[in-house]
Amino acid sequence: MKKRVFSGIRPTGRIHLGNYLGAVQNYVAMQDEFECVYCVVDIHALTTLEDTHLLQENIREQVIDLLAAGLDPSKCTLFVQSHVPEVTELFTLLGMATPLSWLLRVPTFKEKVKQQPQNVNYGLVGYPVLMTADIVLYKAEVVPVGEDQLPHLELAREIVRRFNDIFGETFPEPKGRLTSVPMVVGLDGRDKMSKSLNNHIELAATPEETMKKVMSAVTDPARMRRADPGHPEVCNIYKLHKTFTPSAVDEIAQGCRTASRGCVECKKELGNAINEYLAPLRARRAEIAKDQAYLDRVIKEGAEKARAIAKVTMVEVKRRMGLL
Amino acid sequence: MKKRVFSGIRPTGRIHLGNYLGAVQNYVAMQDEFECVYCVVDIHALTTLEDTHLLQENIREQVIDLLAAGLDPSKCTLFVQSHVPEVTELFTLLGMATPLSWLLRVPTFKEKVKQQPQNVNYGLVGYPVLMTADIVLYKAEVVPVGEDQLPHLELAREIVRRFNDIFGETFPEPKGRLTSVPMVVGLDGRDKMSKSLNNHIELAATPEETMKKVMSAVTDPARMRRADPGHPEVCNIYKLHKTFTPSAVDEIAQGCRTASRGCVECKKELGNAINEYLAPLRARRAEIAKDQAYLDRVIKEGAEKARAIAKVTMVEVKRRMGLL
Ligand code: SF4
Ligand code: SF4
Repeated sequence: MKKRVFSGIRPTGRIHLGNYLGAVQNYVAMQDEFECVYCVVDIHALTTLEDTHLLQENIREQVIDLLAAGLDPSKCTLFVQSHVPEVTELFTLLGMATPLSWLLRVPTFKEKVKQQPQNVNYGLVGYPVLMTADIVLYKAEVVPVGEDQLPHLELAREIVRRFNDIFGETFPEPKGRLTSVPMVVGLDGRDKMSKSLNNHIELAATPEETMKKVMSAVTDPARMRRADPGHPEVCNIYKLHKTFTPSAVDEIAQGCRTASRGCVECKKELGNAINEYLAPLRARRAEIAKDQAYLDRVIKEGAEKARAIAKVTMVEVKRRMGLL
Repeated sequence: MKKRVFSGIRPTGRIHLGNYLGAVQNYVAMQDEFECVYCVVDIHALTTLEDTHLLQENIREQVIDLLAAGLDPSKCTLFVQSHVPEVTELFTLLGMATPLSWLLRVPTFKEKVKQQPQNVNYGLVGYPVLMTADIVLYKAEVVPVGEDQLPHLELAREIVRRFNDIFGETFPEPKGRLTSVPMVVGLDGRDKMSKSLNNHIELAATPEETMKKVMSAVTDPARMRRADPGHPEVCNIYKLHKTFTPSAVDEIAQGCRTASRGCVECKKELGNAINEYLAPLRARRAEIAKDQAYLDRVIKEGAEKARAIAKVTMVEVKRRMGLL
């Protein structure tokens, strides 16, 4: 039997190349090896109360992208967190077995307190409890994590151990699956690709928009003139070529170093390569976006599948805690 | 239209005279003036994780007593908190709008931290948030409170104001209804009547048990011998006579002061008066206890009535927060 994987996906809206290469490709790949439960965590998005008026649109756009990128509702369970309200029941109940002190010492919590001391709400403190509820509601055994999320997962495991200690063996301790997701640098050549920095390319962008963005990208800053030799190792365009033009990277590097290749030409090639790479995905995206009834059905059926598991877990949890 | 009242009732098991005279009579009386929502708060009972294995029995015994005491399921909504899971959804969402600092300065929380520093869990900190969710899930306008609970209600009002501020006018600010519930002293003549001190008389006790408990009660400690004059003003038996033998209190006081009345006789009279007073209630209790199917139905229908209101509130809350 396949092990169950859980992963929560922040509803940040349309997916860009950074998300895609960094995480989404991994989600797609895991579908065959695991029984995957993928949850768009809309309640988590409320812990900082930002942009809640965009939440619905962001969720829909993101689900469209996830489906276009290859998540297959017949293979995985893809749903929206708040559509399975059992998670809030479990969150409430796990909170009874989670010492406050554990939560106050979480590094990301302390950081947020520093960043926005005026907005430290009860929900924010409980973020790791809700995350634990997300995972164990489905009794997931495996959680894909980046290095930075390991402390959260360790805390989830501690909460699970404590609950199991008090109420008897109920949940498996979820294990982290370290996924070495490549950090994709944005078109500014400086920071991680992200929507807020507008240094990103959305999967849903048109070929023209994509080309325009790529053409305006920062290359090797030391290469002032066309005749100057370039340094591909510091150039983000070169890095992206590695992904999108893998067969020609050596040639590109050499052409750059000898100044036989110009940046304009190089970027045009990258833009074309990206557009070619994304073409089938964009075609699927357009199909899905046209068929809102299909999208509604996918979201509804995902919630139903998830809820069927959740209900069984909650009966067990309530029995153990004396609520049934 | 009648205003809606909400009150949470701790599932402490069988009701004793102290609860009855102190709170339950008030619940019964309010049924005519208000639209009453009475909730047996089993999730709250978990904040300290005590005696969870008795929870189900305690809930049933208590509901039997509440019905026997006069709560009428056709007039009020009587249900068990966890049977309406929407409350945990609202708790989770209200937590996003509740500053942690507000919760950490609640006097009863600080006290509990002192009493059981090893058991301060996230759920305990969130007690006032869950209490607020209880009230506003039903958009209750009135909450009967004792003097000591006023800080909790004030906090609930603050949470409501903040939520309304951020997301638009959603909930009425619940108003406290100060109910001067008499503090009933236990049979030890010293402390408040309570189960844990075993200085109580359960509504469900037999007449014989009741008489035995009353006969063993502490009276005026200065009255060593039968011939000594007594001081009814310091005697708890006298106090109870005021409730159960109101027409004869002057005569009792005089007899006590002049030593024409003995404590044994005085207690026997009180025992009889209590038994007489409780007789119809105990008869109803026996009826209900025999009919578990009726009890199940009352509990189930109560939850259905409550849930119908809760669902409407949650749709509105989710819309306002961007979850729908
Ligand atoms: S030629 Fe290509 S790799 Fe070299 S600096 Fe220009 S964009 Fe970068
Ligand atoms: S006679 Fe009655 S009122 Fe007086 S001390 Fe005895 S029990 Fe109390």
